[in-house]
Amino acid sequence: MRAVDLIQKKRDGGELTREEIDFFVRGYALGEVPDYQASAFTMAVFFKGMTGAEIVALTESMMRTGEVLDLSDLPGPKADKHSTGGVGDKTSLVLAPLAAACGVYVPMISGRGLGHTGGTLDKLESIPGFDVRLSLDRLRAVLRGCGLGLIGQTPEIAPADRKLYALRDVTATVESLPLISASIMSKKMAEGIDSLVLDVKCGDGAFLRSREEATALANTMLGIGKGMGKKVAALVTDMDQPLGRTAGNALEVAECVETLKGRGPKDLESLSVELAAWMVQLAGSAASLDAARVKVRAALGSGEGLERFRRVIELQGGDPRVCDDPSLLPRAPDRIVVRSERDGRLTRLAARAIGHAGMLLGAGRETVDGAIDHGVGFTFHKKVGDPVAVNEPIVTVHAGRGSRRDAALDLLRQAISVQPEAHARGPLVLDILS
Amino acid sequence: MRAVDLIQKKRDGGELTREEIDFFVRGYALGEVPDYQASAFTMAVFFKGMTGAEIVALTESMMRTGEVLDLSDLPGPKADKHSTGGVGDKTSLVLAPLAAACGVYVPMISGRGLGHTGGTLDKLESIPGFDVRLSLDRLRAVLRGCGLGLIGQTPEIAPADRKLYALRDVTATVESLPLISASIMSKKMAEGIDSLVLDVKCGDGAFLRSREEATALANTMLGIGKGMGKKVAALVTDMDQPLGRTAGNALEVAECVETLKGRGPKDLESLSVELAAWMVQLAGSAASLDAARVKVRAALGSGEGLERFRRVIELQGGDPRVCDDPSLLPRAPDRIVVRSERDGRLTRLAARAIGHAGMLLGAGRETVDGAIDHGVGFTFHKKVGDPVAVNEPIVTVHAGRGSRRDAALDLLRQAISVQPEAHARGPLVLDILS
Repeated sequence: MRAVDLIQKKRDGGELTREEIDFFVRGYALGEVPDYQASAFTMAVFFKGMTGAEIVALTESMMRTGEVLDLSDLPGPKADKHSTGGVGDKTSLVLAPLAAACGVYVPMISGRGLGHTGGTLDKLESIPGFDVRLSLDRLRAVLRGCGLGLIGQTPEIAPADRKLYALRDVTATVESLPLISASIMSKKMAEGIDSLVLDVKCGDGAFLRSREEATALANTMLGIGKGMGKKVAALVTDMDQPLGRTAGNALEVAECVETLKGRGPKDLESLSVELAAWMVQLAGSAASLDAARVKVRAALGSGEGLERFRRVIELQGGDPRVCDDPSLLPRAPDRIVVRSERDGRLTRLAARAIGHAGMLLGAGRETVDGAIDHGVGFTFHKKVGDPVAVNEPIVTVHAGRGSRRDAALDLLRQAISVQPEAHARGPLVLDILS
Repeated sequence: MRAVDLIQKKRDGGELTREEIDFFVRGYALGEVPDYQASAFTMAVFFKGMTGAEIVALTESMMRTGEVLDLSDLPGPKADKHSTGGVGDKTSLVLAPLAAACGVYVPMISGRGLGHTGGTLDKLESIPGFDVRLSLDRLRAVLRGCGLGLIGQTPEIAPADRKLYALRDVTATVESLPLISASIMSKKMAEGIDSLVLDVKCGDGAFLRSREEATALANTMLGIGKGMGKKVAALVTDMDQPLGRTAGNALEVAECVETLKGRGPKDLESLSVELAAWMVQLAGSAASLDAARVKVRAALGSGEGLERFRRVIELQGGDPRVCDDPSLLPRAPDRIVVRSERDGRLTRLAARAIGHAGMLLGAGRETVDGAIDHGVGFTFHKKVGDPVAVNEPIVTVHAGRGSRRDAALDLLRQAISVQPEAHARGPLVLDILS
């Protein structure tokens, strides 16, 4: 078998066999297939796509270039959630403890934020001492201790995907549905989980803005999960405005703690509960989705979710007192309140521009090795549809010294609109695919 | 400017500017743009094509990564011919001396054979002592001495093309009209010529089999030449059966000598004269194409063409006595005569299969560093349309010891067909574009 023949087959619209895909992916991981053949291949895939069977084979091959967690010694189902990312999207920190409290092990391997969307790891690292760089063995121990573990990608997980993603980034082959789907799923499926819930976001602040594209991605990932014999469901959710009342790492952790105390904003709480319920139901820990919702709500109401969060912080070296005293989290020195210039209703709180404004404050990074200011971000006093009076606060900006705050404020002001009338807000969950 | 943005622009169907193409090509030649970006780029070009302006810019940029011959000190027009290659295609060795005899300088930089088609350099190297690896300075001296020079690619000529071609070969991006055209023309235009005649072959033995594809390639190359301010014409010619009466390196040299003596086969003589006449006419050394034909025929009849060939052999270190005594050329030890099994007419002498049979004998190479047996090959006693009697010789195979002659004979026999009736032979020159 020669790599050049496989590139040509794909270029000419052929369907590659499982063996051919495995030859290419393994060879690439081992350095036997050079970067220049891999980039020609991914460009051919960009134009010609892949069949469902090819995508499953690609995912499995990438996954098998690395370690696949064997969690069979843990006495319960294992499940996870993956989100395609958004602004203020912090559900992981709420739903993972809740699902764990319902008897589901959650071995969550997450990424860092890049561009306008945040990353779970960055949020966790705003907790003093919290270590996301655990080995897979320590992850196992943490899971045994509290039912969940929240770590970053390790070198053992799907190395072919890591290598290929870096290559795609510099060869204009990122925007390919099969490659995006296989990349996400190769890492998630390496977690040794039985079931997975996908939160595929669409709208202004999402990676894929259109609902059609988001649905296509959701269906492709569903197909991979099912093709690999897992239980999978996907929720297509709205990301036109930020989720919850905050965006910014430490601000979001504090908001998650409030939510686990039953005092969180409605949208964040309901989406977290819904995603956790799907995890619990798919994992077989509840007889129906409704029963799963009841179970998750009980874990929220009883404080068991909060207890699990406190415990995972402790087991991963963090200071669990942040659950009682949010002032232990990093805080930005300055607060600037952006107020309404008129009476009316908030009609726009554009997530993408707010994400970019956050980057200017230092909340997110523009390049993979950029530094982060954990304390900066936004508090949203109003959400789209809310009535607003003239001079009433809409957003509080938490800014550090020396950040590009003027540019951030300009962006933020453009992201906000108050009008006499507001359209009715659509639902947060737009579609459920399973 | 970033290479990844240019890849994306081409991927999305955009037209690159001259500056953008130059940035990419120069960067690639200098090693600043890595192979993996170049291969993604060429795959994007494969799918999205290039506009005429982009192709001209690509050709010029590739040409300018190396030396462009300045032959302005030579007192006369400079012209060349390029053929897309075929089986038994030996016109260069006939037309270059004829054009030189008509007052046109011919600085011909050729390639080696690869696959089923032969290469001018391999043919020349069957002449004892002939050195095709001259520096550009020695080429200049040879041109001054006899009006033509026949050398191989030097490292100074279009290094970006050399690098890119090697990359395309292993990334399945060879078959792209813009890239093929720019590759050919970047090398030809570096010869410092004023005019160029293109012999674009189509049919069974050609690189592009269909006439439509050949015409498209011819038009693209014409567009490049004109875009660079040169006089260009293209002949689309038939390559269904081998050209002339021989295929194989030394056999072809001997046939060219016979042709320069006015005793060559009709098809080879007429195509060589026609191509030379176009060179002479485009170069302005004759008032019309008819006048150019008369001039070329005169150079053939007077023996001046043969004299020029004798002289170039001498100036390039070869033994000019091969022009008088072809037995000084390498000869294969064995001759096997393939005879007709029936009465009728030869309806098929399939060029591609014969080219492959020649490779099995050792006349051509399967990989770029393969060795060649200069003496082996074929003599064709019959051409398509000729009447054949049972037992009459059709082809003589000149075979070396230890070559894969049985396999070659099998292939050859499949390439031959004798039927009761033959279709009328079409013309050799199918189309003229200028």
